[in-house]
Amino acid sequence: MVSAAIMGYGTVGAGVFKVLTMNRELIRERVGEEIRVKYVLDLREFPGDPVTDVLTHDFNDILNDPDVKIVVETMGGLRPSYDFTKRALLAGKAVCTSNKELVAEHGVELRQIAKEKNVNYLFEASCGGGIPIIHVLDSALTADEIDSVHGILNGTTNYILTQMMDEGREFADALKEAQALGYAERNPEADVEGWDACRKIAILSSLAYGKHISYKNVHTEGITAIDAADMAYAKALKMKIRLLAASGNTAEGVWAMVAPMLVGRKNMLYNVDGVLNAILVHGNAVGDTLFYGSGAGSLPTASAVAGDVISAARHLNRTMASDWKAEEMELMPLDEVKHAFFVRFAGTEEEARASFGEITPVRLPSLPDEFGFVTPVMAEKDFKAAATDRVVKRIRIA
Amino acid sequence: MVSAAIMGYGTVGAGVFKVLTMNRELIRERVGEEIRVKYVLDLREFPGDPVTDVLTHDFNDILNDPDVKIVVETMGGLRPSYDFTKRALLAGKAVCTSNKELVAEHGVELRQIAKEKNVNYLFEASCGGGIPIIHVLDSALTADEIDSVHGILNGTTNYILTQMMDEGREFADALKEAQALGYAERNPEADVEGWDACRKIAILSSLAYGKHISYKNVHTEGITAIDAADMAYAKALKMKIRLLAASGNTAEGVWAMVAPMLVGRKNMLYNVDGVLNAILVHGNAVGDTLFYGSGAGSLPTASAVAGDVISAARHLNRTMASDWKAEEMELMPLDEVKHAFFVRFAGTEEEARASFGEITPVRLPSLPDEFGFVTPVMAEKDFKAAATDRVVKRIRIA
Repeated sequence: MVSAAIMGYGTVGAGVFKVLTMNRELIRERVGEEIRVKYVLDLREFPGDPVTDVLTHDFNDILNDPDVKIVVETMGGLRPSYDFTKRALLAGKAVCTSNKELVAEHGVELRQIAKEKNVNYLFEASCGGGIPIIHVLDSALTADEIDSVHGILNGTTNYILTQMMDEGREFADALKEAQALGYAERNPEADVEGWDACRKIAILSSLAYGKHISYKNVHTEGITAIDAADMAYAKALKMKIRLLAASGNTAEGVWAMVAPMLVGRKNMLYNVDGVLNAILVHGNAVGDTLFYGSGAGSLPTASAVAGDVISAARHLNRTMASDWKAEEMELMPLDEVKHAFFVRFAGTEEEARASFGEITPVRLPSLPDEFGFVTPVMAEKDFKAAATDRVVKRIRIA
Repeated sequence: MVSAAIMGYGTVGAGVFKVLTMNRELIRERVGEEIRVKYVLDLREFPGDPVTDVLTHDFNDILNDPDVKIVVETMGGLRPSYDFTKRALLAGKAVCTSNKELVAEHGVELRQIAKEKNVNYLFEASCGGGIPIIHVLDSALTADEIDSVHGILNGTTNYILTQMMDEGREFADALKEAQALGYAERNPEADVEGWDACRKIAILSSLAYGKHISYKNVHTEGITAIDAADMAYAKALKMKIRLLAASGNTAEGVWAMVAPMLVGRKNMLYNVDGVLNAILVHGNAVGDTLFYGSGAGSLPTASAVAGDVISAARHLNRTMASDWKAEEMELMPLDEVKHAFFVRFAGTEEEARASFGEITPVRLPSLPDEFGFVTPVMAEKDFKAAATDRVVKRIRIA
């Protein structure tokens, strides 16, 4: 029997408790022994909930119990989760988390401590919910040089963009609906400004390229400026607008960014609608591979955390290999990063050609004062140099 | 330094040699030491090829060299690969293979031997080429009860079906083209009769449900009977025909089959065209997850084998956990398996209703003597009981 503790009985923590209970027999077979949840830490009471039997309000109950080999951290935020995680690892307990904020901020240090203590700090659920992308990068696509990662890593914004595309809604309306349905929070900034996706791509890119990428260095644009006209152009181009969390490992260096981008039909990300997540990884041997599923939700996220609990139980006192070095990755300056751009242009075709060379205009009857076109692949600085005040808007093309 | 040997310098073996060479530095960092290919076993000579320096014609060179800790088996077939693999494992060497035939036939026994010798028998490349689906089932989706697996696991047939759908070709023409392009073999039976996919779904289902499923018990239908008229109906239904390798874990038992099936637009497998592979896994916690990529080809397959080599190097003398028990899984009788069926019917609507209840006919101008319809979900035996000689054809719906 392996004893575990869950810190934080919110949506994800309750899901982990449920998955470990509901699939107990099967997990016992797969691990070779039973995994028992001995404590659940939460400041609240849950009268009538089966958790009551194991509920504690004191972290020291967990920290000081030598029985507890695995700690699940589903509290979120940095405080007190950072402190609790660090102390649990230092006490020789494995920690499994869904907390992307903490992983993006302190993951390198916490993995380092785990390694020194011969235990594991695992965070499959921090990116892409139930999609086992961390596992794939850590343990499966290990023979490849990863060239690029393109992810739809935020279900809220993907839902909003899908609604805007399918129903012709404006951003504010689609956001309100997402809030009413519980897909978006009352304070939606972390999602719609891209901050959530930014932390996730920083984590995935660190694992993919082997050096630490700080989320603070990742250029991040949200979707608040996307409007119904952009969607109409996207339709005319047979493309969709996605909030992509993307990074690439090029001859000129490594880049990473979060931004709304246009995605064509041949890209598998084109078909990822609604609250779902997907990650497209390109390796120099394997080529394109795509991983798709539920990026959020109690049970899918809990599936990932509980999978980590099983990995931790299978590797008690043995740190699993990972290629996330503490060394800081120097990212390319944004100015050097290359994409093709879709441009909305309020001027003449001659003016557009004078700035961007040969273009094929796309015109919408509803917007007589402008037209759109796609530039060749060019560096951000060259785009900036070419853009005059005739440029109404630009959206990168993935 | 870890020494490895490659047995079989064909398409995949040469790919493994190339990947281990091209990504040597990166692999050294990820493993913590260099992986050196000390021998390549092949009966042929390869004048001018860099492999010449390490080429041997004698398996005993590999078997008797205590330096060699990891053996790659990319010979294919059962002989002599079974014998060589067994002897390598018994000598305490890990074996990594792309050989689905061998894994489906003797995988349980070979994993058992590996376990007794504290080494690993790994076969990521045996199913889905570069898609890390074995890894995901063995190590990531471990907290879930897997409910179903639906795979497009054979690129040749998917290419043929895509050509038939997109270009309106008949099967024989599409096959000829696939052969001309090198996507299909001169003797295409293993692909077009579903035998290849059958072995793969037997392997994946064994891992997913934890007991051994013999490929010999998997009901298998190929695509040779699919014609242009079926494709026209599929288009009318806004569906596509895919050769699915599928299995399910239901309250009534476990089933597995390979058969052409109709797939609707909301199913992510709908969008998997051409030679690509994809596997849709449903878990009771994670829900739907999809894994997509190149199912064949020298480098994608080699990426999977080389990833296994890295796993083996990271776990020398330590068997990685897996849930493939030797115990035989008793599959449900085919008669009890349930699907909805698409039926082509050469009779009156009244006759169809008398047999199948309420139906919505689909008529094609080019086929005035018949019409099509979709039945409710029903057991195979109930379908058989209802089907009269008016039934021209039936295709299951995924």
